[in-house]
Amino acid sequence: MNTAPFRSLVALTALSVLPSQADGDSLPSWKDASARNSIVKFVEEVTTPGSPHYVKPADRVAVFDNDGTLWTELPTYPQFYFGMARVKANASRHPEWSAVEPFKSALAGDLEGVVASGVRGLIELTAAPHDGLTPDEFEQVATAWLSQARHPRFGRPYTECVYLPMLELLRWLQAKEFQTYIVSGGSQEFLRPWTAHVYGIPASRVIGSTVVTRWERRDGKPVIVRTGKIELVNDKEEKVLSIQRVIGQRPILAFGNSDGDLPMLEWTAGGAGLRFCGYVHHTDAEREYAYDRQSKTGRLDKGLDTARAKGWTVVDIKQDWHRVFNFEPGPR
Amino acid sequence: MNTAPFRSLVALTALSVLPSQADGDSLPSWKDASARNSIVKFVEEVTTPGSPHYVKPADRVAVFDNDGTLWTELPTYPQFYFGMARVKANASRHPEWSAVEPFKSALAGDLEGVVASGVRGLIELTAAPHDGLTPDEFEQVATAWLSQARHPRFGRPYTECVYLPMLELLRWLQAKEFQTYIVSGGSQEFLRPWTAHVYGIPASRVIGSTVVTRWERRDGKPVIVRTGKIELVNDKEEKVLSIQRVIGQRPILAFGNSDGDLPMLEWTAGGAGLRFCGYVHHTDAEREYAYDRQSKTGRLDKGLDTARAKGWTVVDIKQDWHRVFNFEPGPR
Repeated sequence: MNTAPFRSLVALTALSVLPSQADGDSLPSWKDASARNSIVKFVEEVTTPGSPHYVKPADRVAVFDNDGTLWTELPTYPQFYFGMARVKANASRHPEWSAVEPFKSALAGDLEGVVASGVRGLIELTAAPHDGLTPDEFEQVATAWLSQARHPRFGRPYTECVYLPMLELLRWLQAKEFQTYIVSGGSQEFLRPWTAHVYGIPASRVIGSTVVTRWERRDGKPVIVRTGKIELVNDKEEKVLSIQRVIGQRPILAFGNSDGDLPMLEWTAGGAGLRFCGYVHHTDAEREYAYDRQSKTGRLDKGLDTARAKGWTVVDIKQDWHRVFNFEPGPR
Repeated sequence: MNTAPFRSLVALTALSVLPSQADGDSLPSWKDASARNSIVKFVEEVTTPGSPHYVKPADRVAVFDNDGTLWTELPTYPQFYFGMARVKANASRHPEWSAVEPFKSALAGDLEGVVASGVRGLIELTAAPHDGLTPDEFEQVATAWLSQARHPRFGRPYTECVYLPMLELLRWLQAKEFQTYIVSGGSQEFLRPWTAHVYGIPASRVIGSTVVTRWERRDGKPVIVRTGKIELVNDKEEKVLSIQRVIGQRPILAFGNSDGDLPMLEWTAGGAGLRFCGYVHHTDAEREYAYDRQSKTGRLDKGLDTARAKGWTVVDIKQDWHRVFNFEPGPR
């Protein structure tokens, strides 16, 4: 993986901005409220030797959704903007796209039409333009786009539009010997170039949607080649099946923000022993966005009801976070 | 995962039998010959800070085939015996099996017919009898079988028929901060219950063949259910595609023993920087087995030519290993 260009981009963002913290102050961007307290209580109970809920490090599996849980997903998934740009850039090779959704909407710059295609559309728009590329070539394309793209409201690279409190949580869990995974509906290969630098999560712990690949020889050397065909749309129940396929263990902690994460949270909750399930609830239109049951992207409806019924932790961004982004000049 | 019954079985085998070794003597079962020396030279070059070939721990990915590389695969893959037993045990529910290969041969106890079905047959025989089981239920079945099955020649549990020199190598690489993976044609869920105890390789680092799974509710609780349908036969080129899908990084070290491992070794060799590719060559009919180009199981033909042409390390069991198994009373 050629991460050099990207590393320079993110060197000043994300995990590297976090100051070292004493254990009791690992979550400085979290207000001293019930969400923070429930997280701290859980982590201490499962990591303190002698605790009745102690879990050995090998079993400390924690899974996080990405869009809307670790980074901002409105106006829509950043990957949708990537897909639209890539479809436009490759349109001349694909005249057939002008008549087929979600490509038609992408070419017309119709964000609403694109969003209506859902997570499958997201993966289609990322898959089709990159048919025939090697993973390394795809990575260069994704990295180049991410380095120049800016969030339409915040004017920052998407990789800076990550939630500071969640970065603190990831770092703290990693220090506590949790194996932190991303389990995303987004494309695995779109995430992998930057998750190590931004989240401290290596490629092997990124589980996302995939395309069918094939092995072939080019100039006598073996290469892996992406096709335009979808292998897996890693959403809803598929997230649970992926967790079993890739990790082979049931997580003890899961964080999501939408109904697409509900099966993963239910699966986590269903194991024996103490479990933590958390939802990020977007309630802060001023600092980020406020949306839930009616949103076209990241709809949180049944999940919110389930969380409340089961007593899961619902993080209210407005109430629970001192600070949302690192770039935010808000009070601390 | 319920590993308790299995843990007791293997507690006295495998990694736990290895004495702690000073760094220079981490491979006591390896003779002081070229195979050992090439391994030691490689590991020292990539792990010594300041070395021109230094590789940081995050990039120290090492992949190992299992059958014939870490444990004995003759008379045939242990999993074939498991599959035959399971097909017999479930035959009354499946009258159609009596007319279809490889089930027909399995029911007739025709080992040659079963072996002729190859790696796909191996996965079919493991998949079909367990349609409808959860992964936990499958694990109990596999563990129960492994606890009572004995190797037909050595009279030992299959999990004791693991190569002591390879256990030493795994342990040494793990101590040197390598991420050691199994990349096997065998079924992932057949391996996972015991690889942590025997090889020090956790479930999340076991990549094997898989069946299609589905999510459903039983008594209101979400469960994962195995189907009898094959999702992936993780052999040959598929091993390379799996490595990219699951690990997302090209390995710097790969060990195999058959032509089925050749693409994985070529893929490893094709990366930039220093790489290690090794083949276990079965040359010791007295202590284990002698086979290569003509074998129906674990055929090593094109791979042997390629290894010699490219200067890869070919481990000659007879010449290179003081001791093959822990239970072997041989000279040291």
